[in-house]
Amino acid sequence: MRRIFSVLVENRSGVLCKVAGLFSRRSFNIDSLAVGETDDHAVSLMTIMSSGTEQTLEQIEKQLNKKLDVIKVKTFEESKAITRELMLIKVKYNKSTRREIMETCEVMKAEIVDMSENQMILQICDTPEKIRLLISLLSQVSIVEVARTGTLALQKCMED
Amino acid sequence: MRRIFSVLVENRSGVLCKVAGLFSRRSFNIDSLAVGETDDHAVSLMTIMSSGTEQTLEQIEKQLNKKLDVIKVKTFEESKAITRELMLIKVKYNKSTRREIMETCEVMKAEIVDMSENQMILQICDTPEKIRLLISLLSQVSIVEVARTGTLALQKCMED
Repeated sequence: MRRIFSVLVENRSGVLCKVAGLFSRRSFNIDSLAVGETDDHAVSLMTIMSSGTEQTLEQIEKQLNKKLDVIKVKTFEESKAITRELMLIKVKYNKSTRREIMETCEVMKAEIVDMSENQMILQICDTPEKIRLLISLLSQVSIVEVARTGTLALQKCMED
Repeated sequence: MRRIFSVLVENRSGVLCKVAGLFSRRSFNIDSLAVGETDDHAVSLMTIMSSGTEQTLEQIEKQLNKKLDVIKVKTFEESKAITRELMLIKVKYNKSTRREIMETCEVMKAEIVDMSENQMILQICDTPEKIRLLISLLSQVSIVEVARTGTLALQKCMED
């Protein structure tokens, strides 16, 4: 099974390594990782997607909670979360492929954010599935380079 | 000065820790970090923004190139790159703040991706400056939680 760990950590040098190290030392799987600031400069949020048995996932949560720099661990299932990834992808184009790329962008809600005479950079922000789909569509044209973030996730809105 | 390091690495457990460790051991600054897959499953791309003297930045590049799991290091200035961040932000709303939040979204090109009777999740994909601006605008309403990626960057399109 798969679980999302939303880990609030102190924004200090070395914290990332401690948390990533916990996973690799114990052979816990990291399927995806996104790290970024929050609205508080002293605090970062790590969004980690991991998979394993129920027991392994409980172990991960326990070990994370033991770390000194970890402020709070939240864990939830993918089905209860809004998940998004960001990708920038540079493609080559020519007169005959330009229209096709633009139509793909329109359908996939990707945006062209830079362009030269034979290259474009597209930006897409969507679910991991849609990101993979866009890569496979564009691989039939000509991909120059790809930069992707890990998956961000927030628990869906509930009444409170 | 500030520089972007675009580091292609083998997609193996422990690589993240090695690269992050290189920075923390030598007290190189990581301003932002984004890690993700590329179009090749065996290869990940780490986008690292770092600042320091010209000499420090050269040192970082040299040290990165020495690492076994590092396939390729590209470095470029922020002004020559397209930079984007992704943020999911959950806010509380009520009858009197709902319109204001929706208008802010419209102006900032943020999208409402989930909603309950008193909470919304907004998604924005923009430059780091715009992300900070949206946080400061929404902090006047009521932020529940924030998840952000590090900055993604690709070198602007050139003719080839």
